[in-house]
Amino acid sequence: MTTADIGLIGLAVMGQNLVLNMNDHHFKVAVFNRTISKVDQFMSGPAKGTEVIPCHSIEELVSKLKKPRRVMLMVKAGPVVDTFINLLIPRLDPGDIIIDGGNSLYTDTERRHKTLADKGIIYVGSGISGGEEGARKGPSIMPGGNIEGWSHVKDIFQSIAAKVDNTPCCHWVGTGGAGHFVKMVHNGIEYGDMQLICETYDFMSRGLGMQAQEIGEVFAKWNKSVLSSYLIEISSNILGTIDEDGTPLVDKILDTAGQKGTGKWTGINALEIGIPLTLIGEAVFARCLSALKEERVKASALLKGPDASFSGDRDLFINHLHDALYGAKIISYAQGYMLMSQAAKEYDWDLNYGSIALMWRGGCIIRSVFLNNIKEAYDNKPDLENLLLDDFFMEAIYRAQNGWRKVVGKAAELGIPLPAIGAGLAYYDGYRSDRLPANLLQAQRDYFGAHTYERVDKSRGEFFHTDWTGHGGKVSSSTYDV
Amino acid sequence: MTTADIGLIGLAVMGQNLVLNMNDHHFKVAVFNRTISKVDQFMSGPAKGTEVIPCHSIEELVSKLKKPRRVMLMVKAGPVVDTFINLLIPRLDPGDIIIDGGNSLYTDTERRHKTLADKGIIYVGSGISGGEEGARKGPSIMPGGNIEGWSHVKDIFQSIAAKVDNTPCCHWVGTGGAGHFVKMVHNGIEYGDMQLICETYDFMSRGLGMQAQEIGEVFAKWNKSVLSSYLIEISSNILGTIDEDGTPLVDKILDTAGQKGTGKWTGINALEIGIPLTLIGEAVFARCLSALKEERVKASALLKGPDASFSGDRDLFINHLHDALYGAKIISYAQGYMLMSQAAKEYDWDLNYGSIALMWRGGCIIRSVFLNNIKEAYDNKPDLENLLLDDFFMEAIYRAQNGWRKVVGKAAELGIPLPAIGAGLAYYDGYRSDRLPANLLQAQRDYFGAHTYERVDKSRGEFFHTDWTGHGGKVSSSTYDV
Repeated sequence: MTTADIGLIGLAVMGQNLVLNMNDHHFKVAVFNRTISKVDQFMSGPAKGTEVIPCHSIEELVSKLKKPRRVMLMVKAGPVVDTFINLLIPRLDPGDIIIDGGNSLYTDTERRHKTLADKGIIYVGSGISGGEEGARKGPSIMPGGNIEGWSHVKDIFQSIAAKVDNTPCCHWVGTGGAGHFVKMVHNGIEYGDMQLICETYDFMSRGLGMQAQEIGEVFAKWNKSVLSSYLIEISSNILGTIDEDGTPLVDKILDTAGQKGTGKWTGINALEIGIPLTLIGEAVFARCLSALKEERVKASALLKGPDASFSGDRDLFINHLHDALYGAKIISYAQGYMLMSQAAKEYDWDLNYGSIALMWRGGCIIRSVFLNNIKEAYDNKPDLENLLLDDFFMEAIYRAQNGWRKVVGKAAELGIPLPAIGAGLAYYDGYRSDRLPANLLQAQRDYFGAHTYERVDKSRGEFFHTDWTGHGGKVSSSTYDV
Repeated sequence: MTTADIGLIGLAVMGQNLVLNMNDHHFKVAVFNRTISKVDQFMSGPAKGTEVIPCHSIEELVSKLKKPRRVMLMVKAGPVVDTFINLLIPRLDPGDIIIDGGNSLYTDTERRHKTLADKGIIYVGSGISGGEEGARKGPSIMPGGNIEGWSHVKDIFQSIAAKVDNTPCCHWVGTGGAGHFVKMVHNGIEYGDMQLICETYDFMSRGLGMQAQEIGEVFAKWNKSVLSSYLIEISSNILGTIDEDGTPLVDKILDTAGQKGTGKWTGINALEIGIPLTLIGEAVFARCLSALKEERVKASALLKGPDASFSGDRDLFINHLHDALYGAKIISYAQGYMLMSQAAKEYDWDLNYGSIALMWRGGCIIRSVFLNNIKEAYDNKPDLENLLLDDFFMEAIYRAQNGWRKVVGKAAELGIPLPAIGAGLAYYDGYRSDRLPANLLQAQRDYFGAHTYERVDKSRGEFFHTDWTGHGGKVSSSTYDV
């Protein structure tokens, strides 16, 4: 009887392509899908001629697997994952491994890891990025969970993962939900990168009056610069794609983006653990605003602004846009790394930041030259406090800021919304401010709520309350946090 | 034996002042505090000569109350509330009322409401705003929960609440957690208002080189304008307050603000239900950044920017700052109202937006002339889709935008961070854009993840997938949300 190296459940696009990728690397994969007809369609279609083993029930799938059994779920994040785990539990033995390769929320992965550990089953929650093409040709894989699982998934995962300079874009991330957490931050950063590109596109289109094709050519040029990345490359390709009627396809696409899942979670996590993830936050909210299409159309007829046309040196301004995108991108990654660093403290993970950059260098959606620079920053100084304090990025953002400032100013003048590029600049100027106006804010809180404040001329941890009105009480607040 | 109208547990500043306020209005209040010495301190201090009844145990407190008993908790939000509820349950009878007047998370209030309803106890979760002084002289009170509770708390609450034009700033908000939800949004808006004031202060200080006293005078002037509000008033008072050494006290206050609780929750809720609450988000994150004091001090020596000095007409620019604050404030409230409107749909609440503005007009921290304008907007059109589409605000923001744009541009040029004022402007320009660059974003998602897109020349709900590279598959994604 044939035995399979691994079983995979869930034959949507990512699942199918991972199976084909594993098959290319000579792993035997047994497959199952809830809608069973999809198994046969897969076998007679993309999997035709492969050694993939079709299964028409979970029992059949489990029966085909080598021991210890490895079963990978590529199903929709959420309750469906629990459903399949519950279906698998009675059919597996202690020491078997369940891998969740979907975009699960890291707290769900933590919970599942614990529940399954109690039953002797090894749980691996793995982020996988690369989209359709990455899954097929080599994705970035970020596994975490039960460390016992690493030796069982390492060969398959590192074989199918993307390689950069012969190094696979797959390393063990950490315990519990660490793999899915890092994937979540990856996706948040991806939201940021996409939004930043869209904003420069919007400025070129509305502000500089450029057509899609022309903007695509600018992106193609930028793809040879420090901005060289998969997302810039595909944006260039998209803008050059012509519809059946001979006009740019991108102009026909409706401007409403979905927002749910990982970007949103990244923002929520940042708020929960108190990290100022402003740029990704704006990127998530920009998708929310884009979704209000009908309201925007109505508002556009009523709310007037300046005339959005630009006069000046267009080529010079395109360079400024390049620098604005680059400066803001540095901020976005710096914020994302701050989030990972704080999460590692909160959840007691030993994250390797250089290794994370290395995993993201290839295979995944945010792959870029830029991630090499991050890798180098952590190679130079493994305990780097903040990406902005690395020599390379410090110099890079310093050089980018002139154009970046001009872009933010001009966009405000012309009435073109650049929420993420603007948030990035405000963050840069805030981060490099030894003194922010929160002194007034603390005074306000003490004034209306007796919340107390610290003083610049006293030790930290000493709290003062002023009776500002002359008729307040002496009782300071311990009940309210405003 | 004396019987009390209401029992109150928790004698921190808000609790004490509410008790004294109730006593002023001839309600007999029995009080208890976990640290029992505080009861006696209160009686021999602020409550001396009042009719307040001190209690040294929960049993004693319960025994002193008229039936049906009303017990109000003014304790720290979180598990402490559950602890006291659990202590009360065996000592109360069906039909008795528990009121939580703290800053509880609305989902906790929903849960408690349900649990107590099963036991026949009526639960009221009430937001209370006004800080120390409001609690003492008349706060804004936002009760929700079990509607049966309204007739039991109405007399006390409307008596002690602030009054504007003889109307008490207290109305029934809605079922379950509606009262605490509306209070949460109130606090989020408060975060926004405070941050906006701080940003204009920062620009006057760093950009225009003005001293605290002088800035306080500007705020005093603004307090006679459309910006007239409690927070502007106290900011003016704060900036005029002199320390013992004769210099402005505000300059001695450390610039690190706390951020936890309601502002953070408002941002999380916005992300969860998909409402672009960008300005309040930036305000919460600004507090997070302020807390990184040591890192900022270090960064300020390394990350260089332009020289922040302003040359030009200073008085004119102060007017621009006024308009920037006003424009951004309109955006902040519009976003907050969008959040409430979406939450009402999600949680099936019948919120009365005019009545909410009316509750916030007096007593609370965000009280202002501005809230009259909001009340009028909803009086004119109760089903107003968005505050920005009201005639008054449409005209107001139109007139504010010229100065607002100049402020955002100048801040970018000078290197002064105005994250909330800038986010507000980007939102205004985004909201009034019939077309945003999310078309490129949807193309990117379809390119790398086969996520499909809609088209401007086809019906909504029709989804298209392009094989952008010429070698992708025909399978569209149903597994991944990127």
